[in-house]
Amino acid sequence: MNERAFTRELAKLFGTGRAEIEVGIGDDAAVLALRGGRAVVTCDPVVAGVHFEPDTPLEQVGRKAVLRNLSDLAAMAATPAFLIASVLLPSCVDGERRDALFAGLRSASAEYGCEVVGGDVGTTPGPLTVTVTAIGELEGRALLRSGAMVGDRLFVTGSLGGAIAGRHLEPRPRIETARWLAAQSEVHAAIDISDGLALDLWTMLEASECPGAILWADAVPVHVEATSLESALHDGEDYELLISAAPGLNLDMAPDVASTNRCAIGSIVAEPGLWLQRSDGKRARIPARGYQHGI
Amino acid sequence: MNERAFTRELAKLFGTGRAEIEVGIGDDAAVLALRGGRAVVTCDPVVAGVHFEPDTPLEQVGRKAVLRNLSDLAAMAATPAFLIASVLLPSCVDGERRDALFAGLRSASAEYGCEVVGGDVGTTPGPLTVTVTAIGELEGRALLRSGAMVGDRLFVTGSLGGAIAGRHLEPRPRIETARWLAAQSEVHAAIDISDGLALDLWTMLEASECPGAILWADAVPVHVEATSLESALHDGEDYELLISAAPGLNLDMAPDVASTNRCAIGSIVAEPGLWLQRSDGKRARIPARGYQHGI
Repeated sequence: MNERAFTRELAKLFGTGRAEIEVGIGDDAAVLALRGGRAVVTCDPVVAGVHFEPDTPLEQVGRKAVLRNLSDLAAMAATPAFLIASVLLPSCVDGERRDALFAGLRSASAEYGCEVVGGDVGTTPGPLTVTVTAIGELEGRALLRSGAMVGDRLFVTGSLGGAIAGRHLEPRPRIETARWLAAQSEVHAAIDISDGLALDLWTMLEASECPGAILWADAVPVHVEATSLESALHDGEDYELLISAAPGLNLDMAPDVASTNRCAIGSIVAEPGLWLQRSDGKRARIPARGYQHGI
Repeated sequence: MNERAFTRELAKLFGTGRAEIEVGIGDDAAVLALRGGRAVVTCDPVVAGVHFEPDTPLEQVGRKAVLRNLSDLAAMAATPAFLIASVLLPSCVDGERRDALFAGLRSASAEYGCEVVGGDVGTTPGPLTVTVTAIGELEGRALLRSGAMVGDRLFVTGSLGGAIAGRHLEPRPRIETARWLAAQSEVHAAIDISDGLALDLWTMLEASECPGAILWADAVPVHVEATSLESALHDGEDYELLISAAPGLNLDMAPDVASTNRCAIGSIVAEPGLWLQRSDGKRARIPARGYQHGI
């Protein structure tokens, strides 16, 4: 199939004819109307051998490429609207597997009410690389990493650790939860946990210019797929939200937060560093490590 | 340097503190205010070994990654505003070359009044890959590929062919020219020439549901770096605009169009196919070939 015919097929596959899409797939660029005139934009790639095993079914790869970006939109309390996808295919990917990749991009987008409106499909001598740019809309305030304050309580929206066993392929962007959180005045800051609780908490502390935080060992929810509390602290790719809020925050009405995750897991403190407090009252330093690209 | 410190350096390198950037580099996503509430969005990658020779200086690679996307914005008559850059580095790229890449992204952005506001820097086991998403604003109408009509005259904004000798690294996005064109009622359609005049003209014909076009051999401007008229028709990566307009269009007042490029190079006709008309009046079919990724 030539590139032109292929583009027409993509327009049919992804297009829904939404009125907000003035120009969709098939021209030099997409033209999009944004509610409120503000765009929330994020872009993360998935690369074979880095973000997924090379033998992962490509429908799953397409889904992860979308969902990890929607998780970043959720962390800002944005509502997903449009996606741009750049797909670089190695020659070993045949038409069937390529179509499975597109099906994954499409199904994950549709589940969150957004749509692929443009991008590019090309070839690469390297590994399969899918780079999704997600564009969201913001009705209220954005939830930022900065804004956490000494005395805040920390919360997470789900249990952590062991995502590498497979869950990392299917992040659950906490869109509804984040929108609810942004409407609560007690909520000061939020970040999605991609590099691990300890490291992303440290990022939040730095962004907020806070000296330190204590995590309560008994309270950190360890996923059934995690091998230990260590794993919950450092594995990463959980894509749950970490929230810093004034002590009065009550998560009972928060959508999509299990009752087991409505209690605080720690607090922001004036003492410098990251600390783990065990049930016997003893504290130990937590190294601020997790997944970091060596740059 | 760890990822956090590195992100802070990037925020310093790229940030200008423009008021339209509510949240820039350093949070989960960027928050951007768009004039008119519409976003024009495009995304094309550059991959080592595909879009540039592996020994190309990385500052030049950064510039091409930006400029080829701005050329797509120009083809819509949009004004560049924001860029999102996903950079995938192989381990052989040291800090100095990486910084040269960033310098290229920055200098090309600054020249066109736009700014990198977010993205991602990671590693890849494959070739260096830079994927830029460009976001533009639209003051008037968008110039589309569709809209050309039988009887239209065809124009190009510069001479064509031989870009592979080096010019392809430094596209000149025709931003001002395109904005002027969008304001002329005679202009019906435009596309930027990335795959070659013949192939991009064919794309315009298909998008406009027009049967055919004739190019006048004497009128097609052949670049001094091109070896032949063939080269001007098929090489690609010229990043000039191809324009279809009612016969009355006068380019004398068009910004940034040399006097030698103000005459029509052909016309849209009712006869099916692409044709080249020589000075002796003879016509020959032009194959609609150019650069196409084998998908």
